[in-house]
Amino acid sequence: MNSHNEAIAETAAEVPPAAPSSPFKIFHRVVDWITSDRLQLINITDRINDIVRKSGIRDGIVHLQSLHTTTAVFLNEWQDALLADVRAILEELVRREGNWRHNDPQYSDCERQNADSHLRGMLLGQALCLQVRNSAVLLGTWQSIILAEFDGPRSRTMSVQVSGI
Amino acid sequence: MNSHNEAIAETAAEVPPAAPSSPFKIFHRVVDWITSDRLQLINITDRINDIVRKSGIRDGIVHLQSLHTTTAVFLNEWQDALLADVRAILEELVRREGNWRHNDPQYSDCERQNADSHLRGMLLGQALCLQVRNSAVLLGTWQSIILAEFDGPRSRTMSVQVSGI
Amino acid sequence: MNSHNEAIAETAAEVPPAAPSSPFKIFHRVVDWITSDRLQLINITDRINDIVRKSGIRDGIVHLQSLHTTTAVFLNEWQDALLADVRAILEELVRREGNWRHNDPQYSDCERQNADSHLRGMLLGQALCLQVRNSAVLLGTWQSIILAEFDGPRSRTMSVQVSGI
Repeated sequence: MNSHNEAIAETAAEVPPAAPSSPFKIFHRVVDWITSDRLQLINITDRINDIVRKSGIRDGIVHLQSLHTTTAVFLNEWQDALLADVRAILEELVRREGNWRHNDPQYSDCERQNADSHLRGMLLGQALCLQVRNSAVLLGTWQSIILAEFDGPRSRTMSVQVSGI
Repeated sequence: MNSHNEAIAETAAEVPPAAPSSPFKIFHRVVDWITSDRLQLINITDRINDIVRKSGIRDGIVHLQSLHTTTAVFLNEWQDALLADVRAILEELVRREGNWRHNDPQYSDCERQNADSHLRGMLLGQALCLQVRNSAVLLGTWQSIILAEFDGPRSRTMSVQVSGI
Repeated sequence: MNSHNEAIAETAAEVPPAAPSSPFKIFHRVVDWITSDRLQLINITDRINDIVRKSGIRDGIVHLQSLHTTTAVFLNEWQDALLADVRAILEELVRREGNWRHNDPQYSDCERQNADSHLRGMLLGQALCLQVRNSAVLLGTWQSIILAEFDGPRSRTMSVQVSGI
């Protein structure tokens, strides 16, 4: 097994730090989506970049938090074939028709039969923090920001906070 | 497959940014728990909100970091039936009695037989960043902050940092 | 099921907040690695601590973001036997030879046959936020910061941002 980092070449590109005299700012927006499918993937990259641009913040952090347990936010390539695989792996890892207590009226008063939605949301997470550089979200060439609906159709809300200088 | 966002309705509610003249602050607390079971879920939402309130910070970020690899911190609904499902999916995805090297004296000097605990902690993560709004942790109606013990009973420590204005 | 927190003992150690007059700063570095294996785990803890030390920031946040979808960043113990288990669970949860559309020329123009790499990266995530305390990354005794290569050998870039006071 080659797990050690002795053989790893490293280079570091230094970037000049921002002027220390800039005042710290926080900018906040709430964004809503109306979803149409039970399991739906939405590319929100442009929407988040719009908010970052409006914030006037050049360097810092953008924090995305979906306010629903049966959703998730994550990065991946936005390609139709891969999105089908994202759905497939989630359906394989957390089966909808599992023997879940949350779906059993004997144990639960939830009538949505959405245990799988909760567990898929937990695996991928509902909060994501990304860097802001030069007034844009820092993303690699193939990285898109994806909001996952796991129990639609619903109205969904995300809180977006940009902080920095 | 309906994965595109062309059909998604969007609305944005603008929130006035905080006064730019407020000074940036950092507030830090260390919290300890003594757990009683091997796999135990603890609702720490109130405890984190207490710390945020004491911090005097109105807008910003609260960062939670459990200092142990065999734990996790995540969001989900706090409902007994669903918590049973959380345990079930973790036990299904990462079997305790797998053929793990970390549990094999031939390869490992760890005597806790806790490979499953490490791998479950890795899947859910030990660090969580959430927004602070109006001197409280921003959470959706059904979102609770959950600390997961995967190798108890133990004494566990979490570092909580509130930063902002 | 013992999932309630009534029985949990808690103590809180207060740490004096940093002087509110310190100016907020952001420090940024780009780090590159050349990987040698398809699935490779790299301990980047020392490299990140070097950057935090150079930043001159005493208290705050260090944000790590790998700029590639087929990678991940996470915490775990750095032990050879456990690293073998990390590889094993990822290969079990997301099979390389699955029936993935991303690998099927009928649906995808990607020739890397790396659907598994994308899905493993999604499960563990490419962004990680950790606390900075006393000019070092806050980590528990057994926590190392691990960069996972899921589609090597490649040249990989991580953006490291330290912010705080």
